[in-house]
Amino acid sequence: MKQSLLFVKTAKDAPKDEQSFNAQILMRAGFIDKLGAGIYTFLPFGLRVLNKINNIVREEINKVGGQEILMPALNPKEVWEKTNRWATFDALFRLKGNDEKEYALGATHEEIVTPLAKKFILSYKDLPFAIYQIQTKFRNEKRAKAGLLRGREFVMKDLYSFHISQEDLDNYYETVKQAYYKIYERLGLSDITYLTYASGGAFSKYSHEFQTVTEMGEDSIYVCDKCKVAVNKEIIAEQSTCPVCGAKDLIEKRAIEVGNIFKLGTKFSNAFEITYQDQNGDMKEIVMGCYGFGPSRVMGTIAEIFHDDKGLLWPEAIAPFKIHLLSLNQNEEAEKVYQTLTAKGIEVLYDDRDLPAGQKFFDADLIGCPYRLVIGKSFVNSQKLELKKRGLNAKEELLTLAEILLKF
Amino acid sequence: MKQSLLFVKTAKDAPKDEQSFNAQILMRAGFIDKLGAGIYTFLPFGLRVLNKINNIVREEINKVGGQEILMPALNPKEVWEKTNRWATFDALFRLKGNDEKEYALGATHEEIVTPLAKKFILSYKDLPFAIYQIQTKFRNEKRAKAGLLRGREFVMKDLYSFHISQEDLDNYYETVKQAYYKIYERLGLSDITYLTYASGGAFSKYSHEFQTVTEMGEDSIYVCDKCKVAVNKEIIAEQSTCPVCGAKDLIEKRAIEVGNIFKLGTKFSNAFEITYQDQNGDMKEIVMGCYGFGPSRVMGTIAEIFHDDKGLLWPEAIAPFKIHLLSLNQNEEAEKVYQTLTAKGIEVLYDDRDLPAGQKFFDADLIGCPYRLVIGKSFVNSQKLELKKRGLNAKEELLTLAEILLKF
Repeated sequence: MKQSLLFVKTAKDAPKDEQSFNAQILMRAGFIDKLGAGIYTFLPFGLRVLNKINNIVREEINKVGGQEILMPALNPKEVWEKTNRWATFDALFRLKGNDEKEYALGATHEEIVTPLAKKFILSYKDLPFAIYQIQTKFRNEKRAKAGLLRGREFVMKDLYSFHISQEDLDNYYETVKQAYYKIYERLGLSDITYLTYASGGAFSKYSHEFQTVTEMGEDSIYVCDKCKVAVNKEIIAEQSTCPVCGAKDLIEKRAIEVGNIFKLGTKFSNAFEITYQDQNGDMKEIVMGCYGFGPSRVMGTIAEIFHDDKGLLWPEAIAPFKIHLLSLNQNEEAEKVYQTLTAKGIEVLYDDRDLPAGQKFFDADLIGCPYRLVIGKSFVNSQKLELKKRGLNAKEELLTLAEILLKF
Repeated sequence: MKQSLLFVKTAKDAPKDEQSFNAQILMRAGFIDKLGAGIYTFLPFGLRVLNKINNIVREEINKVGGQEILMPALNPKEVWEKTNRWATFDALFRLKGNDEKEYALGATHEEIVTPLAKKFILSYKDLPFAIYQIQTKFRNEKRAKAGLLRGREFVMKDLYSFHISQEDLDNYYETVKQAYYKIYERLGLSDITYLTYASGGAFSKYSHEFQTVTEMGEDSIYVCDKCKVAVNKEIIAEQSTCPVCGAKDLIEKRAIEVGNIFKLGTKFSNAFEITYQDQNGDMKEIVMGCYGFGPSRVMGTIAEIFHDDKGLLWPEAIAPFKIHLLSLNQNEEAEKVYQTLTAKGIEVLYDDRDLPAGQKFFDADLIGCPYRLVIGKSFVNSQKLELKKRGLNAKEELLTLAEILLKF
């Protein structure tokens, strides 16, 4: 992408109407724009990052058999009444249509996916299966001051699984847990993300959150570093030791919840009266699980964690571009380099703008692509470009284009 | 994809609560599910088709310089008041948040994109540019009985362009018009899709719709077959001749609007007070265009048109799979064929279910993949599979796997 064509510009100062660090830096660097509290537009760089996160999640959920669908945001009141959550779900946006019907805006989709699954389940032969979507959710938050960490509108991957027995759910739950570990590994978050024991509700002793440790986190968790697990604040009174090794010296840390998995049991399948016929012809209850992951929240989390004083430091797997190519008055030569790199399938942001070098370096640091490649006056004689990995202590390398191509 | 793992099943009969043909056949074939009037879930096959349409549109809009973003559905009341459309836009869903603020659900995004663009426009050097999204829209329709043709919630590609002058807009408008022709060509709709002259509003004599001719259409258009253009019902009284050749014998036809392009002039840029500084330092008005395309509506249109008595007939470019492989009790051999074809990058739906041949043929016709490939008992001796192009008069070919690989 050529920067001269991009309609977005970076900003030197933090926006006045935004308190959260993640939204401030993402707005300054031109990744998002704020429309209202907890409501953001994804600009071209931001949408690229979001799509990369979505695709990592999609690939790992597909691997564990998730079948992707897309459910509506407009939910008829009746399905939310079936579970009594029309009255009790605080953060539900409610509205009335010109047809005089009432609707909720989907804040989660158990009320939609359960009757959908019901249409296709007759016998044990139809089970198990797992359905997911990557879709826009709405939550009627009283306050939304945490940028992408707590949106009134946000992107969510929600997976739901349907099983003939608790045992079958338990097995699949472990499979999805492993898929989540793989997702955080690919996002560069695994070292600081803890499987966190949380309240399990009526059908299980625990549910699990994935909590990424950072000073900026809204949550408190109690970490056992030996076992790489934690206990959340909600259950620490009753579970004050490590649930794995029993150690008593858990350490309190601040963290952001970046995923959660939950055994729903028969709560929703009973509410919607879905059952299946077993091998003996008897009607049995269906056991469900649900598995949430917020790609836009994870983008905010990564902005909170991966940055320095100058700007963002994107992990390679989700960076908007791999290389930021800066032309210092060498656009003719830089154009060739740009064409050569993109022809090889490398994602390059090419700063071809008529601006001082200082502004280009400032922007490259702020935007935070993993590699900065500078083509300056010395290129004419030496045929060498300056390659620098984004980060505090990386050294600049002088390389020919051929040498650069070998590296990527 | 293996059909035995798919949670969706086809249905023999049309759903009782659905009047429109497109939704009936798409529901029977397992592409969509109905949640409410004008509100549908995209099931795995349906989402595959929708994504393919989205990608064709994305590629062609990127080629004409569109920069993809993602704007919110939750729109603060204030921006809709700026243009007076909070009061006048009938089909706007309005709701109140827990923060006591009022919101509209985005039915179109001029009110969001114009103030967004304003943040980045200072001088003529920042123009022109074009921004688009592929995003979920909401319209508070009193009645929604046309399936995917008129949704309360639907997918839309909306492109907005910003220019220094009417002339610059006029040129870009022609460029986008050509991109739309290319999109309909790739979708297999160009033979029956007419550039249709419509009312231009305050800033232009005409706007243009793209209308696809079919008996099932809600609209009446008046066609000049020589020029491959039409006039819509709204302006036929004042424009009763072909706008291109002047011919008087226009023919009335039923059609579905599958796109529209519109010169907005300065209506929205003035409402949001966006201007630019020209070469002489004078402040000038910005001229805008907007360009709509409904991927989910186009999916419904294609279902209305491309079908026979047995089921759907997907154009290859947007079919959920290229080949539907049916195993007639030959799953061991069929598995090898499936693996070989998918390893070559061919999209295959593999019917490995334990069902009678008749049910498999029924489903293959209903789902409507372009090619049906049958592996039956004769394969053991002859090593030949039966390949048949979906459609009325196509003959079956007996081919070895090697011969099939050469064809695809």
